[in-house]
Order: sequence, then structure tokens, then C-alpha cells
Amino acid sequence: MKTLIVHAHPESGSLNGSLTRHAVTTLERAGHDVRVSDLYAMGWKPLVDAADFGDAASKPLRVARDSGRAFDSGSLAPDVRAEQEKLLWADTIIFQFPLWWYAMPAILKGWVDRVFTSHFAYGVGEHSDTKYGERYGEGTLAGRRALLSVTIGGPEAHYAARGINGPIDDLLFPIQHGILFYPGIEAVPPFVVYGSDRLSHEDFPAVARAWEERLLALEETEPIPFRRQNFGDYEIPSLTLKEGIEPRGREGFALHVSD
Amino acid sequence: MKTLIVHAHPESGSLNGSLTRHAVTTLERAGHDVRVSDLYAMGWKPLVDAADFGDAASKPLRVARDSGRAFDSGSLAPDVRAEQEKLLWADTIIFQFPLWWYAMPAILKGWVDRVFTSHFAYGVGEHSDTKYGERYGEGTLAGRRALLSVTIGGPEAHYAARGINGPIDDLLFPIQHGILFYPGIEAVPPFVVYGSDRLSHEDFPAVARAWEERLLALEETEPIPFRRQNFGDYEIPSLTLKEGIEPRGREGFALHVSD
Repeated sequence: MKTLIVHAHPESGSLNGSLTRHAVTTLERAGHDVRVSDLYAMGWKPLVDAADFGDAASKPLRVARDSGRAFDSGSLAPDVRAEQEKLLWADTIIFQFPLWWYAMPAILKGWVDRVFTSHFAYGVGEHSDTKYGERYGEGTLAGRRALLSVTIGGPEAHYAARGINGPIDDLLFPIQHGILFYPGIEAVPPFVVYGSDRLSHEDFPAVARAWEERLLALEETEPIPFRRQNFGDYEIPSLTLKEGIEPRGREGFALHVSD
Repeated sequence: MKTLIVHAHPESGSLNGSLTRHAVTTLERAGHDVRVSDLYAMGWKPLVDAADFGDAASKPLRVARDSGRAFDSGSLAPDVRAEQEKLLWADTIIFQFPLWWYAMPAILKGWVDRVFTSHFAYGVGEHSDTKYGERYGEGTLAGRRALLSVTIGGPEAHYAARGINGPIDDLLFPIQHGILFYPGIEAVPPFVVYGSDRLSHEDFPAVARAWEERLLALEETEPIPFRRQNFGDYEIPSLTLKEGIEPRGREGFALHVSD
């Protein structure tokens, strides 16, 4: 595998830091190529602004349109281009981050906001009354897989199907489906460490072993079967699920996962 | 009302800029006090790091614990303290932002990550086997209300109950429930402008009128009835919804809204 690890934590001595180091060692020992984007260590600029688009920035700035123009003309900021190139190089992407307020830390969201430009991650393919782009299962990054590795302070029960925070699958849906599957990346089920605030050094070897097992099984792990946009499940152009699909009364995000 | 508007867009000449200006004018004309945190214009630092916690930063850094210590000792960074004070001043908070990749822009997520520290927004109240904090309906910011004003490039149908992106209520749940209701803020239903990428100047007056109506009705608008944690709906300490609640086979985030 060619694996890109996108790492988002301010403290290298954290659990997240240990998990990323363990992933590098494990994958390299198994003969895989690994590159790491350690966003805090790189001094990653997290904010979209006109400087991202060079000559293609218009006044007033129009983020979606200008990002597509900058992508087309090669005038995207060099740090953005470098990350896009890493994504094109990789066949596997691992995201290592703590769940802060039920979402990515700002630095990782800022990596998505800046790197997933128009004409690269969205605005790809025909957009008309009969087709709404190559997305959700197709797109620039099709054929790649991703794995979220997430640390969570609270206990697992709070993230269960009826847990107060909402089910973890639903909380990660906007990332796994909305961000990753959109440009074609298939996500495998996440690796989640709960109770990380109470984890001691003595607990780490068991976590590391579980992480290692997931990493070494990655190539054989089935991705989450999100429904593809352009293969019959959705009405066009409303892109609502067709009548008769999901008759079992499922609601919410789960509708978009097939059996 | 004492209203704080947290504004997150890089371009003041954008639809988001117009909506914030229109909110300020509308609310002030109606006699309300308004303060604006225009995050890009303020040069808001979006990243949590050791500098946020002053003398309370430990080595290695422990974000949750150190943020609570820094809050207690008054050594939080001045820009973070200033935002906490604005939240304590306000009775109403409006968030104005574009939905980028189904979530907040990084600068706004970084406002949450930095301002919602331990002992201010979480880690409040008794944490034991019989109580898991004052949260979800109680907490430091109880008694306040919030309104998300969100611009979305795509069409409304894609965000409908069976739309491919997932229902807008579910996409906003991690913000309205996970971020706002957690420290006690009640969210009213969001104001959403769809199709913003195709909106022309001629379309703006109708949008502005709808926005004005929502703003002027804010004090009488019923908040989303999220279930409160400590009032009988949840098992303690698992914090899963009790048996017998929600018998209609609802799933996902919707479970946590009462009728």
C-alpha cells in the first residue's frame, strides 16, 4: 500500500502521536510506503482565503468558483498542491485525530476546506438536469480507501445506538460519506479509542495491538457500503432516495448505507 | 435581546457578509444590543495549542485538563477570555457561516475548540457514578438561545429527509445538540439559504425579508426540544435512552428530540 497519514494533534507525546508512530512502524515493517502530513508540525495554514488562489482570486472572493479556477490554472498555493499530490499518490489515507466537539479539530477541517478544492474534490464531471457530477462513489479520488482513527474522551456507551451523544456512525457520517465518499474515497469502519482521557500508559499496549491488527488487515477490510449516486438508487435531479428502497422504516444517515 | 453574532466568512462582500450586516441593522433598529465577532476580520487564531493555556500548560500538553486549569486560574489567552465574556454577556447567539463539507468552516470550528474550554463549556458539575456533569440542557450557558444561519451551495432536495447528503437536521445535530445544547444553549430551528452558489443580486431582497422575519420573531420562536440529560430520559451512567422511550422505531439523532 501507499499510505498517507494525515495527523492532527498539537502534542507529539499524546495518544494520537503514539498511534501515528505505531502506524508508521507497523506499515513500514509490513513493506508498505508511508508518508505523514503532521499538520501542527508542518505549521499547516488552516484558513481558506484569497491567498490560496493566487491570480485566480477574484474581488469579491468567490471561494467555490475561484478554487476551481486556481486548480485549473495551476495557481493554487503550493502547500495545497502538495497535499493534493500526496492524495493522488496514495491508495490509502489514514486520518488520526481526537474528536473535539463531535467533529474534527479545526486544523484538520482546514486541511479539508483548503485541499478539497473545486474541480479536484467537487465540481467534477457533468452537472446538468440528468447528471449531478461524479461524486459519492465516483470522482478524482475513486479507487482509494480511507480509515479514520479517532480518540474520544468519553465512554463508548454515550456513543451507542441510543447513547446521548448520538451513534458514532452518525457522528462520523459527514466525514466518511460527505467528505471522503464524495470525491470517491471508500471508508472502512473507523478505529475508535474511547475513554482516552482515562487511559494510562499501562493500557497502551492493548490499544496498540488492536490498532496493529486493524492496520495489517486493512487491505482485506470491506469498506462501508455507502450507496453510489449514479447507479440507480437516487432520483435525478432531486437526488432523493427512490421509493421502495429502504422499506424497513430506517431514517437519517443510515438510509444511505446499503445492506 | 443581547445578541452576539459569530461570523465566519473570508469575504465581507459575500452573501454571509450581507446577512450579518442585515442582522445587525434589523436587530439594532428593533432596540436590541448587538456585538459581532467577525472571525476573519479579527484575525482569529483557530488552533488550540499550549499558548492558549499560559502557565497552566503542562508538558506534555493535555488539552482537556490544561484548558480547565487555565480557566480556573485565569491564565487562558486573552482572546479566548474575551469570547467567553461575550457569551456570558449575550442572551442570544447567532452563528453566520457557509456549510463547507457538511460542517463549519475551520475558523469557526477553531473558535469552538478554543473558547469552549473545560470548566467553562464541559467538565462542569459533579461527575460520578450517579451524575455525569451538568450538560445537555444545563451548564454555564443555560438560559441562552442560539440560531444557526447557514448558506449552502446545493439545492434543498439534496438535504431532505431522503436526500443524498443526509437531512439538514442531522447534519446540524452535532452543532445544535453536541456543541450548543451541551453547555446549556437552546437552539431554535436554523435559517438556511440553499442554492447560494446560484443566487443573484436580484434574489437577495427576498432572502433578506425572510431573514428579517426570523430575526424579529426570535424571542417567540420555540427551541428544538432536545432531551435534557438529567431529567429522567436517560439511564445513568450509560446515558443511553431508557427503554420505552421512542417506541416508534426512530433511529439516529432524532431519538434525542422529544415530541
